Amino acid sequence: MESAPAIQKLLDELERMPGVGPKSAQRIAYWLLNADRATALRLADAIVEVKDSVHFCKRCFNYAEDELCEICASSRRDPSAICVVSEPRDIAAIERTAAYSGVYHVLGGALSPMEGIGPDDLRISELMARLASEDVTEVLLATNPNVEGETTAAYLARLIKPLGIKVTRLASGLPVGGDLEFADEVTLGRAIESRRVL
Amino acid sequence: MESAPAIQKLLDELERMPGVGPKSAQRIAYWLLNADRATALRLADAIVEVKDSVHFCKRCFNYAEDELCEICASSRRDPSAICVVSEPRDIAAIERTAAYSGVYHVLGGALSPMEGIGPDDLRISELMARLASEDVTEVLLATNPNVEGETTAAYLARLIKPLGIKVTRLASGLPVGGDLEFADEVTLGRAIESRRVL
Repeated sequence: MESAPAIQKLLDELERMPGVGPKSAQRIAYWLLNADRATALRLADAIVEVKDSVHFCKRCFNYAEDELCEICASSRRDPSAICVVSEPRDIAAIERTAAYSGVYHVLGGALSPMEGIGPDDLRISELMARLASEDVTEVLLATNPNVEGETTAAYLARLIKPLGIKVTRLASGLPVGGDLEFADEVTLGRAIESRRVL
Repeated sequence: MESAPAIQKLLDELERMPGVGPKSAQRIAYWLLNADRATALRLADAIVEVKDSVHFCKRCFNYAEDELCEICASSRRDPSAICVVSEPRDIAAIERTAAYSGVYHVLGGALSPMEGIGPDDLRISELMARLASEDVTEVLLATNPNVEGETTAAYLARLIKPLGIKVTRLASGLPVGGDLEFADEVTLGRAIESRRVL
Protein backbone atom coordinates (compact mmCIF):
# COMPACT_ATOMS: atom_id res chain seq x y z
CA MET A 1 0.00 0.00 0.00
CA GLU A 2 1.35 3.42 -0.88
CA SER A 3 0.51 5.53 2.14
CA ALA A 4 2.21 8.66 3.41
CA PRO A 5 5.34 7.88 5.51
CA ALA A 6 3.96 9.79 8.51
CA ILE A 7 0.82 7.62 8.44
CA GLN A 8 2.89 4.44 8.06
CA LYS A 9 5.03 5.48 11.03
CA LEU A 10 1.93 6.12 13.14
CA LEU A 11 0.52 2.72 12.13
CA ASP A 12 3.78 1.03 13.17
CA GLU A 13 3.74 2.72 16.57
CA LEU A 14 0.03 2.06 17.16
CA GLU A 15 0.48 -1.62 16.37
CA ARG A 16 2.95 -1.95 19.25
CA MET A 17 0.14 -1.28 21.71
CA PRO A 18 -1.32 -4.39 23.38
CA GLY A 19 -4.53 -5.65 21.80
CA VAL A 20 -4.08 -3.44 18.74
CA GLY A 21 -3.61 -5.32 15.46
CA PRO A 22 -3.21 -3.91 11.95
CA LYS A 23 -6.97 -3.32 11.51
CA SER A 24 -7.44 -1.50 14.82
CA ALA A 25 -4.26 0.49 14.23
CA GLN A 26 -5.65 1.65 10.90
CA ARG A 27 -9.01 2.50 12.43
CA ILE A 28 -7.28 4.57 15.14
CA ALA A 29 -4.93 6.23 12.63
CA TYR A 30 -7.81 7.37 10.40
CA TRP A 31 -9.68 8.53 13.47
CA LEU A 32 -6.63 10.61 14.48
CA LEU A 33 -6.31 12.00 10.94
CA ASN A 34 -9.97 13.02 11.05
CA ALA A 35 -9.96 14.27 14.63
CA ASP A 36 -9.43 17.95 15.32
CA ARG A 37 -5.85 18.87 16.09
CA ALA A 38 -6.53 19.58 19.77
CA THR A 39 -7.89 16.08 20.42
CA ALA A 40 -4.87 14.41 18.82
CA LEU A 41 -2.42 16.65 20.66
CA ARG A 42 -4.15 16.01 23.99
CA LEU A 43 -3.52 12.30 23.48
CA ALA A 44 0.13 12.88 22.56
CA ASP A 45 0.55 15.18 25.58
CA ALA A 46 -1.06 12.68 27.93
CA ILE A 47 1.45 10.04 26.80
CA VAL A 48 4.41 12.36 27.31
CA GLU A 49 3.08 13.58 30.66
CA VAL A 50 2.57 10.08 32.01
CA LYS A 51 6.18 9.21 31.17
CA ASP A 52 7.47 12.49 32.63
CA SER A 53 5.51 12.66 35.86
CA VAL A 54 4.71 9.11 36.90
CA HIS A 55 7.21 7.01 38.85
CA PHE A 56 7.02 4.47 41.69
CA CYS A 57 5.61 5.34 45.12
CA LYS A 58 8.59 5.13 47.45
CA ARG A 59 6.58 3.22 50.06
CA CYS A 60 4.42 0.72 48.13
CA PHE A 61 5.82 0.90 44.55
CA ASN A 62 2.43 1.71 43.03
CA TYR A 63 2.53 4.33 40.26
CA ALA A 64 2.65 7.81 41.77
CA GLU A 65 3.10 11.43 40.75
CA ASP A 66 4.35 12.58 44.15
CA GLU A 67 6.72 10.82 46.51
CA LEU A 68 3.83 8.74 47.80
CA CYS A 69 0.99 7.36 45.68
CA GLU A 70 -2.55 8.63 46.20
CA ILE A 71 -3.40 5.60 48.32
CA CYS A 72 -0.37 5.79 50.64
CA ALA A 73 -0.91 9.55 50.99
CA SER A 74 -4.63 9.24 51.77
CA SER A 75 -5.77 9.66 55.37
CA ARG A 76 -8.86 7.58 54.60
CA ARG A 77 -6.85 4.36 54.12
CA ASP A 78 -6.06 1.97 56.95
CA PRO A 79 -2.25 1.64 57.12
CA SER A 80 -2.42 -1.42 59.41
CA ALA A 81 -3.45 -3.69 56.49
CA ILE A 82 -1.11 -4.27 53.55
CA CYS A 83 -2.38 -5.97 50.41
CA VAL A 84 0.50 -7.55 48.47
CA VAL A 85 0.08 -7.59 44.67
CA SER A 86 2.32 -8.47 41.73
CA GLU A 87 1.73 -5.40 39.56
CA PRO A 88 0.27 -1.88 39.86
CA ARG A 89 -2.59 -2.87 37.55
CA ASP A 90 -3.73 -5.38 40.20
CA ILE A 91 -4.28 -2.42 42.56
CA ALA A 92 -6.65 -0.89 40.02
CA ALA A 93 -8.61 -4.16 39.88
CA ILE A 94 -8.90 -4.37 43.67
CA GLU A 95 -9.81 -0.68 44.02
CA ARG A 96 -12.71 -1.18 41.60
CA THR A 97 -14.28 -3.65 44.06
CA ALA A 98 -14.39 -1.00 46.81
CA ALA A 99 -14.02 -3.98 49.18
CA TYR A 100 -10.60 -3.05 50.57
CA SER A 101 -9.58 0.03 52.52
CA GLY A 102 -5.99 -0.76 53.50
CA VAL A 103 -2.77 0.06 51.68
CA TYR A 104 -0.73 -1.93 49.17
CA HIS A 105 2.70 -3.32 48.37
CA VAL A 106 3.68 -4.05 44.76
CA LEU A 107 6.17 -6.90 44.34
CA GLY A 108 6.91 -6.20 40.70
CA GLY A 109 6.24 -9.76 39.59
CA ALA A 110 5.88 -13.26 41.04
CA LEU A 111 8.31 -16.04 41.88
CA SER A 112 8.99 -18.18 38.81
CA PRO A 113 11.87 -20.67 38.86
CA MET A 114 11.03 -21.38 35.19
CA GLU A 115 11.76 -17.78 34.22
CA GLY A 116 14.55 -17.44 36.76
CA ILE A 117 12.66 -14.94 38.93
CA GLY A 118 13.71 -15.47 42.55
CA PRO A 119 12.93 -13.62 45.82
CA ASP A 120 15.72 -11.10 45.19
CA ASP A 121 14.07 -10.01 41.91
CA LEU A 122 10.90 -8.97 43.74
CA ARG A 123 10.39 -6.19 46.30
CA ILE A 124 10.26 -8.65 49.20
CA SER A 125 13.02 -7.11 51.31
CA GLU A 126 11.21 -3.77 50.95
CA LEU A 127 8.02 -5.47 52.21
CA MET A 128 9.84 -6.99 55.18
CA ALA A 129 11.33 -3.59 56.01
CA ARG A 130 7.82 -2.09 56.01
CA LEU A 131 6.54 -4.85 58.30
CA ALA A 132 9.44 -4.11 60.67
CA SER A 133 8.91 -0.34 60.77
CA GLU A 134 5.16 0.13 60.20
CA ASP A 135 2.37 -0.94 62.54
CA VAL A 136 0.86 -3.71 60.42
CA THR A 137 -1.68 -6.22 61.72
CA GLU A 138 -2.72 -7.98 58.49
CA VAL A 139 -1.03 -8.86 55.22
CA LEU A 140 -3.48 -9.89 52.47
CA LEU A 141 -1.66 -11.88 49.80
CA ALA A 142 -3.37 -10.94 46.52
CA THR A 143 -1.00 -12.48 43.99
CA ASN A 144 -2.68 -14.21 41.04
CA PRO A 145 -4.38 -17.59 41.62
CA ASN A 146 -1.92 -19.35 39.28
CA VAL A 147 1.24 -21.40 39.90
CA GLU A 148 3.58 -18.40 40.23
CA GLY A 149 1.11 -16.41 42.35
CA GLU A 150 0.43 -19.33 44.70
CA THR A 151 4.15 -20.05 45.04
CA THR A 152 4.81 -16.39 45.87
CA ALA A 153 1.95 -16.35 48.40
CA ALA A 154 3.22 -19.53 50.08
CA TYR A 155 6.76 -18.15 50.23
CA LEU A 156 5.61 -14.85 51.74
CA ALA A 157 3.29 -16.57 54.23
CA ARG A 158 6.23 -18.64 55.54
CA LEU A 159 8.30 -15.47 55.88
CA ILE A 160 5.66 -13.26 57.52
CA LYS A 161 3.77 -15.62 59.87
CA PRO A 162 6.69 -15.88 62.35
CA LEU A 163 6.39 -12.11 62.88
CA GLY A 164 2.99 -12.67 64.49
CA ILE A 165 1.18 -10.77 61.74
CA LYS A 166 -2.12 -12.18 60.41
CA VAL A 167 -1.56 -13.42 56.84
CA THR A 168 -4.59 -13.88 54.58
CA ARG A 169 -5.09 -14.97 50.96
CA LEU A 170 -7.75 -14.09 48.39
CA ALA A 171 -10.44 -16.80 48.32
CA SER A 172 -10.55 -19.14 45.36
CA GLY A 173 -13.87 -20.52 44.11
CA LEU A 174 -16.55 -20.13 41.51
CA PRO A 175 -16.75 -16.71 39.86
CA VAL A 176 -19.93 -14.86 40.84
CA GLY A 177 -22.51 -15.18 38.08
CA GLY A 178 -20.63 -18.20 36.76
CA ASP A 179 -22.03 -21.56 35.80
CA LEU A 180 -21.16 -24.86 37.54
CA GLU A 181 -21.29 -26.61 34.20
CA PHE A 182 -18.57 -24.46 32.71
CA ALA A 183 -16.28 -24.24 35.75
CA ASP A 184 -12.94 -25.97 35.30
CA GLU A 185 -12.40 -28.88 37.69
CA VAL A 186 -9.59 -27.21 39.65
CA THR A 187 -11.76 -24.17 40.43
CA LEU A 188 -14.79 -26.33 41.27
CA GLY A 189 -12.59 -28.59 43.45
CA ARG A 190 -11.29 -25.52 45.29
CA ALA A 191 -14.85 -24.23 45.73
CA ILE A 192 -15.84 -27.56 47.36
CA GLU A 193 -12.75 -27.63 49.63
CA SER A 194 -13.39 -24.05 50.74
CA ARG A 195 -17.18 -24.49 51.16
CA ARG A 196 -18.78 -22.16 53.67
CA VAL A 197 -21.21 -23.08 56.45
CA LEU A 198 -24.54 -21.27 55.92
CA MET B 1 -10.37 4.31 41.99
CA GLU B 2 -7.61 6.54 43.31
CA SER B 3 -5.11 6.69 40.46
CA ALA B 4 -2.59 9.38 39.64
CA PRO B 5 -4.16 12.31 37.71
CA ALA B 6 -1.69 11.88 34.83
CA ILE B 7 -2.77 8.24 34.46
CA GLN B 8 -6.46 9.18 34.65
CA LYS B 9 -5.93 11.82 31.96
CA LEU B 10 -4.18 9.29 29.72
CA LEU B 11 -7.03 6.80 30.28
CA ASP B 12 -9.59 9.47 29.31
CA GLU B 13 -7.73 10.29 26.10
CA LEU B 14 -7.13 6.63 25.18
CA GLU B 15 -10.82 5.84 25.64
CA ARG B 16 -11.70 8.36 22.93
CA MET B 17 -10.01 6.15 20.34
CA PRO B 18 -12.36 3.97 18.28
CA GLY B 19 -12.64 0.38 19.49
CA VAL B 20 -10.93 1.19 22.78
CA GLY B 21 -13.09 0.74 25.89
CA PRO B 22 -12.13 1.21 29.55
CA LYS B 23 -10.42 -2.22 29.74
CA SER B 24 -8.30 -1.77 26.60
CA ALA B 25 -7.46 1.80 27.63
CA GLN B 26 -6.19 0.51 30.95
CA ARG B 27 -4.17 -2.23 29.28
CA ILE B 28 -2.59 0.30 26.92
CA ALA B 29 -1.94 2.78 29.75
CA TYR B 30 -0.13 0.19 31.87
CA TRP B 31 1.80 -0.92 28.80
CA LEU B 32 2.87 2.70 28.24
CA LEU B 33 3.83 3.08 31.91
CA ASN B 34 5.94 -0.06 31.64
CA ALA B 35 7.40 0.70 28.22
CA ASP B 36 10.75 2.41 27.94
CA ARG B 37 10.54 6.16 27.52
CA ALA B 38 11.70 6.10 23.88
CA THR B 39 8.86 3.79 22.79
CA ALA B 40 6.22 5.98 24.43
CA LEU B 41 7.68 9.17 23.01
CA ARG B 42 7.88 7.67 19.51
CA LEU B 43 4.13 7.05 19.68
CA ALA B 44 3.45 10.60 20.92
CA ASP B 45 5.71 12.01 18.18
CA ALA B 46 4.02 9.95 15.48
CA ILE B 47 0.66 11.38 16.53
CA VAL B 48 1.95 14.96 16.47
CA GLU B 49 3.76 14.43 13.17
CA VAL B 50 0.72 12.99 11.45
CA LYS B 51 -1.31 16.05 12.46
CA ASP B 52 1.48 18.43 11.43
CA SER B 53 2.49 16.96 8.11
CA VAL B 54 -0.57 15.23 6.68
CA HIS B 55 -3.23 17.15 4.76
CA PHE B 56 -5.39 16.49 1.69
CA CYS B 57 -3.89 15.80 -1.75
CA LYS B 58 -4.90 18.79 -3.85
CA ARG B 59 -5.90 16.57 -6.75
CA CYS B 60 -7.70 13.56 -5.27
CA PHE B 61 -8.20 14.55 -1.58
CA ASN B 62 -6.46 11.43 -0.29
CA TYR B 63 -4.20 12.05 2.72
CA ALA B 64 -0.83 13.39 1.55
CA GLU B 65 2.38 14.82 2.95
CA ASP B 66 3.30 16.74 -0.19
CA GLU B 67 1.03 18.68 -2.51
CA LEU B 68 0.05 15.45 -4.23
CA CYS B 69 -0.48 12.09 -2.49
CA GLU B 70 1.88 9.21 -3.19
CA ILE B 71 -0.58 7.70 -5.65
CA CYS B 72 -1.23 10.88 -7.68
CA ALA B 73 2.52 11.56 -7.72
CA SER B 74 3.45 8.04 -8.83
CA SER B 75 4.44 7.49 -12.45
CA ARG B 76 3.40 3.84 -12.14
CA ARG B 77 -0.30 4.70 -11.80
CA ASP B 78 -2.66 5.01 -14.77
CA PRO B 79 -4.16 8.54 -14.64
CA SER B 80 -6.85 7.67 -17.20
CA ALA B 81 -8.85 5.68 -14.64
CA ILE B 82 -10.33 7.38 -11.58
CA CYS B 83 -11.75 5.30 -8.74
CA VAL B 84 -14.27 7.33 -6.71
CA VAL B 85 -14.43 6.50 -2.99
CA SER B 86 -16.13 8.02 0.03
CA GLU B 87 -13.19 8.18 2.42
CA PRO B 88 -9.38 7.92 2.32
CA ARG B 89 -9.57 4.66 4.29
CA ASP B 90 -11.39 3.10 1.33
CA ILE B 91 -8.28 3.75 -0.76
CA ALA B 92 -6.22 1.71 1.69
CA ALA B 93 -8.72 -1.17 1.36
CA ILE B 94 -8.58 -1.09 -2.45
CA GLU B 95 -4.78 -0.76 -2.51
CA ARG B 96 -4.51 -3.92 -0.40
CA THR B 97 -6.16 -5.90 -3.20
CA ALA B 98 -3.44 -4.89 -5.70
CA ALA B 99 -6.23 -5.20 -8.31
CA TYR B 100 -6.36 -1.53 -9.30
CA SER B 101 -3.66 0.61 -10.85
CA GLY B 102 -5.48 3.86 -11.61
CA VAL B 103 -5.83 6.96 -9.46
CA TYR B 104 -8.52 7.99 -6.97
CA HIS B 105 -10.97 10.71 -6.03
CA VAL B 106 -12.20 11.01 -2.44
CA LEU B 107 -15.72 12.43 -2.09
CA GLY B 108 -15.50 12.95 1.65
CA GLY B 109 -18.75 11.08 2.36
CA ALA B 110 -21.85 9.84 0.56
CA LEU B 111 -25.20 11.37 -0.33
CA SER B 112 -27.63 11.01 2.57
CA PRO B 113 -30.90 12.94 2.54
CA MET B 114 -31.54 11.55 6.04
CA GLU B 115 -28.44 13.25 7.39
CA GLY B 116 -28.83 16.27 5.15
CA ILE B 117 -25.75 15.50 3.06
CA GLY B 118 -26.33 16.71 -0.49
CA PRO B 119 -24.12 16.91 -3.62
CA ASP B 120 -22.66 20.25 -2.49
CA ASP B 121 -21.33 18.67 0.69
CA LEU B 122 -19.22 16.19 -1.29
CA ARG B 123 -16.28 16.86 -3.61
CA ILE B 124 -18.38 16.28 -6.71
CA SER B 125 -17.66 19.61 -8.44
CA GLU B 126 -13.94 18.89 -7.92
CA LEU B 127 -14.46 15.49 -9.60
CA MET B 128 -16.28 17.05 -12.52
CA ALA B 129 -13.48 19.62 -12.91
CA ARG B 130 -10.96 16.76 -13.06
CA LEU B 131 -13.03 14.96 -15.71
CA ALA B 132 -13.10 18.18 -17.76
CA SER B 133 -9.35 18.87 -17.51
CA GLU B 134 -7.75 15.41 -17.24
CA ASP B 135 -7.73 12.70 -19.89
CA VAL B 136 -10.02 10.18 -18.17
CA THR B 137 -11.50 7.15 -19.92
CA GLU B 138 -13.04 5.27 -16.97
CA VAL B 139 -14.61 6.22 -13.66
CA LEU B 140 -14.97 3.28 -11.25
CA LEU B 141 -17.61 4.09 -8.62
CA ALA B 142 -16.38 2.41 -5.44
CA THR B 143 -18.72 3.90 -2.86
CA ASN B 144 -20.04 1.46 -0.26
CA PRO B 145 -22.66 -1.13 -1.30
CA ASN B 146 -25.26 0.39 1.06
CA VAL B 147 -28.15 2.81 0.53
CA GLU B 148 -26.03 5.98 0.70
CA GLY B 149 -23.25 4.50 -1.44
CA GLU B 150 -25.64 3.21 -4.10
CA THR B 151 -27.47 6.55 -4.20
CA THR B 152 -24.18 8.38 -4.63
CA ALA B 153 -23.06 5.98 -7.37
CA ALA B 154 -26.36 6.36 -9.24
CA TYR B 155 -26.18 10.16 -8.95
CA LEU B 156 -22.59 10.26 -10.24
CA ALA B 157 -23.33 7.82 -13.07
CA ARG B 158 -26.15 10.09 -14.29
CA LEU B 159 -23.77 13.07 -14.15
CA ILE B 160 -20.75 11.43 -15.80
CA LYS B 161 -22.23 9.18 -18.51
CA PRO B 162 -23.27 12.13 -20.75
CA LEU B 163 -19.55 13.07 -20.93
CA GLY B 164 -18.91 9.86 -22.89
CA ILE B 165 -16.70 8.43 -20.14
CA LYS B 166 -17.09 4.75 -19.22
CA VAL B 167 -18.67 4.50 -15.77
CA THR B 168 -18.28 1.24 -13.82
CA ARG B 169 -19.39 0.04 -10.40
CA LEU B 170 -17.85 -2.49 -7.98
CA ALA B 171 -19.58 -5.87 -8.40
CA SER B 172 -21.96 -7.03 -5.69
CA GLY B 173 -22.29 -10.72 -4.90
CA LEU B 174 -21.24 -13.43 -2.50
CA PRO B 175 -18.04 -12.76 -0.55
CA VAL B 176 -15.22 -15.08 -1.64
CA GLY B 177 -14.88 -17.95 0.82
CA GLY B 178 -18.42 -17.26 2.02
CA ASP B 179 -21.22 -19.74 2.50
CA LEU B 180 -24.52 -19.72 0.55
CA GLU B 181 -26.34 -20.78 3.68
CA PHE B 182 -25.23 -17.71 5.62
CA ALA B 183 -25.54 -15.11 2.85
CA ASP B 184 -28.27 -12.52 3.44
CA GLU B 185 -31.06 -12.63 0.86
CA VAL B 186 -30.24 -9.24 -0.67
CA THR B 187 -26.63 -10.27 -1.37
CA LEU B 188 -27.67 -13.69 -2.67
CA GLY B 189 -30.37 -12.08 -4.86
CA ARG B 190 -27.77 -9.69 -6.26
CA ALA B 191 -25.40 -12.59 -6.93
CA ILE B 192 -28.14 -14.34 -8.92
CA GLU B 193 -29.05 -11.20 -10.91
CA SER B 194 -25.40 -10.59 -11.75
CA ARG B 195 -24.63 -14.24 -12.55
CA ARG B 196 -21.74 -14.74 -14.95
CA VAL B 197 -21.70 -16.96 -18.02
CA LEU B 198 -18.98 -19.60 -17.65
